[in-house]
Amino acid sequence: MTASNDVRKAMQATNERFCHDVIRDGRFDALSSIYTKGARIMPPGAPMVQGRGAIEGFWKSAVAGLGVTGVKLTIEDTEMAGDTVIEIGHADLQMGKNGTASVKYIVHWKQEDGHWRWDKDIWNMNA
Amino acid sequence: MTASNDVRKAMQATNERFCHDVIRDGRFDALSSIYTKGARIMPPGAPMVQGRGAIEGFWKSAVAGLGVTGVKLTIEDTEMAGDTVIEIGHADLQMGKNGTASVKYIVHWKQEDGHWRWDKDIWNMNA
Repeated sequence: MTASNDVRKAMQATNERFCHDVIRDGRFDALSSIYTKGARIMPPGAPMVQGRGAIEGFWKSAVAGLGVTGVKLTIEDTEMAGDTVIEIGHADLQMGKNGTASVKYIVHWKQEDGHWRWDKDIWNMNA
Repeated sequence: MTASNDVRKAMQATNERFCHDVIRDGRFDALSSIYTKGARIMPPGAPMVQGRGAIEGFWKSAVAGLGVTGVKLTIEDTEMAGDTVIEIGHADLQMGKNGTASVKYIVHWKQEDGHWRWDKDIWNMNA
């Protein structure tokens, strides 16, 4: 079963915080309203990173290192699993003078404090 | 909630079919008892691949291309989500003369025809 419109809207709102607040505006503290407290991310070329503090450190360093200037997230598919959602999506990255990159991902979403947040986040490049 | 011992045992059996039947013995038709009918895989460096036929084609070509001679799958964490399981794990690959590679992954498991199978499968390299 796909997620309801209400859940998808809440997911979109979280995704927009990532694109606008974190990536565009560099407000990395906003990650605490995007990831759950126990969240784990699994980035390509690095070991798994767990917990909000470590995740904030990862994104600061990754955005600076790659020169990411913009991200667009697109939800392709949602699937309810109990009271959680499994999402398949893709991200279009803009990287200043380095051009663009196309990324696909799975995010496992959970509700925490009344908000839909990323609990597990894994991605890789299409090329 | 983590998966029960019975569910984990069934997952291990599926994983062993992948390591032994598919990778060690080259019996790619065994993939039909590992992936669900509508399964999607999200490999690094390539677009998403959907459906058993396409997935079999991907693995044939990837194993030959990389010279994979052995895989060991380790379940790190399981989480029940409704009647499905979200697994975080890692894979140790042996690639003939090309050495080894360390891979981390998320698999979304579903029961199909009484067996636990991989419905969504995404991975990337640690380095």
